[in-house]
Amino acid sequence: MGFRATILTLYPEMFPGHLGFSLAGRALQRGQWTMETVQIRDFAIDRHRTVDDTPAGGGAGMVLKPDVLARAIDDVAKDDRPRLLMSPRGRPLTQRRVRELASGEGIVIVCGRFEGVDQRVIEARGLEEVSIGDYILSGGEPAALVVLDAVVRILPGVMGNELSGVHESFEGGLLEHPQYTRPQEFEGREIPAVLTSGNHGAIEKWRHEQALALTKERRADLLATDAASQPVKK
Amino acid sequence: MGFRATILTLYPEMFPGHLGFSLAGRALQRGQWTMETVQIRDFAIDRHRTVDDTPAGGGAGMVLKPDVLARAIDDVAKDDRPRLLMSPRGRPLTQRRVRELASGEGIVIVCGRFEGVDQRVIEARGLEEVSIGDYILSGGEPAALVVLDAVVRILPGVMGNELSGVHESFEGGLLEHPQYTRPQEFEGREIPAVLTSGNHGAIEKWRHEQALALTKERRADLLATDAASQPVKK
Repeated sequence: MGFRATILTLYPEMFPGHLGFSLAGRALQRGQWTMETVQIRDFAIDRHRTVDDTPAGGGAGMVLKPDVLARAIDDVAKDDRPRLLMSPRGRPLTQRRVRELASGEGIVIVCGRFEGVDQRVIEARGLEEVSIGDYILSGGEPAALVVLDAVVRILPGVMGNELSGVHESFEGGLLEHPQYTRPQEFEGREIPAVLTSGNHGAIEKWRHEQALALTKERRADLLATDAASQPVKK
Repeated sequence: MGFRATILTLYPEMFPGHLGFSLAGRALQRGQWTMETVQIRDFAIDRHRTVDDTPAGGGAGMVLKPDVLARAIDDVAKDDRPRLLMSPRGRPLTQRRVRELASGEGIVIVCGRFEGVDQRVIEARGLEEVSIGDYILSGGEPAALVVLDAVVRILPGVMGNELSGVHESFEGGLLEHPQYTRPQEFEGREIPAVLTSGNHGAIEKWRHEQALALTKERRADLLATDAASQPVKK
């Protein structure tokens, strides 16, 4: 059986979204992964099907109720797949975590909305808060789709052989060097001569220097600390 | 006229994706923003409609050709909207950049695929390389949808009044404190007493302490450097 994704959301119609096409879409059709969406609202038990309420202690926005979400989780996540909660409070997603997730049997993703999710259900159901970046989204759904895209592309058999080498090149801890292809001249700009020299040692050296310079310029944070603690970056 | 988004992609069918629903979808229907997709392949001129070629100097994957992409950009981006190229090599997206983008007239987004985009067209057409995080996606499309979601939600009139206060609370430079809502007791877990005390000073102090402790635990990087240089974070 393939990798199983279960998504708890108030907007199941947002799925599979872009994952229905191209690489992920073909893998979905072939059964290399499966996707199930769960409408959290179906687990509200009052007549108005209430899923949220005002924050204890006051403040703007609404908070997802712990009892409703707990019932939804208990109904669909009876196994030991990791349970992610997409949230700007979470630990940043890294390629290392993506690889770990892809090596497992599947994933349960809770999509937050409103101002947040009641802390007690996060603790009681062992939700792992994950952030995809330092910006604010309309909800957890776009973030869940990003996690799934990153995971699905590295599932066994999803990428063709041609692309598998590309993945390996992400492991260096540096941003990638510039790329060039034909034509040899584009609007008066030539491909750097070293790349067409046939001197593989010189090409490798040039690419490493370029990658290092670019990383220094844009992402000094990747160089500043111990390499082992860094997110894997192409 | 509303905010205009133009997306250059090899997979126009991935759009509007999740942006067709909820907050962004309603704003799209109301004309508060518009979205146009452009098939890059339509600007290939050979009989096979080739958009990519092997990397100069060798290596895995394929590189998007500069001439084809330049023709596509020149055809659809005749104005001075910012031109983003979604790429793991880019500068990380921040909420500050999201706000800048939302305050403008629109955005042009180029979705990379394959191993990358020829460096000469990035330079010749002034493409701003932007990364949404330290993980690898199947292409630029999921990243473009994330940028648009973040931008559209803060366009004037898109969020209701109820939500506008939530946005303001993202400006503190700390992860957000835990949230609680009814019921008062959930599986033996109570809402922290301070939150139902009615003492607003004590509530504010507790929330700040919780936010600080959580940020130290999960995102020491946000505290380590000068606040002014930090991405804005809720």
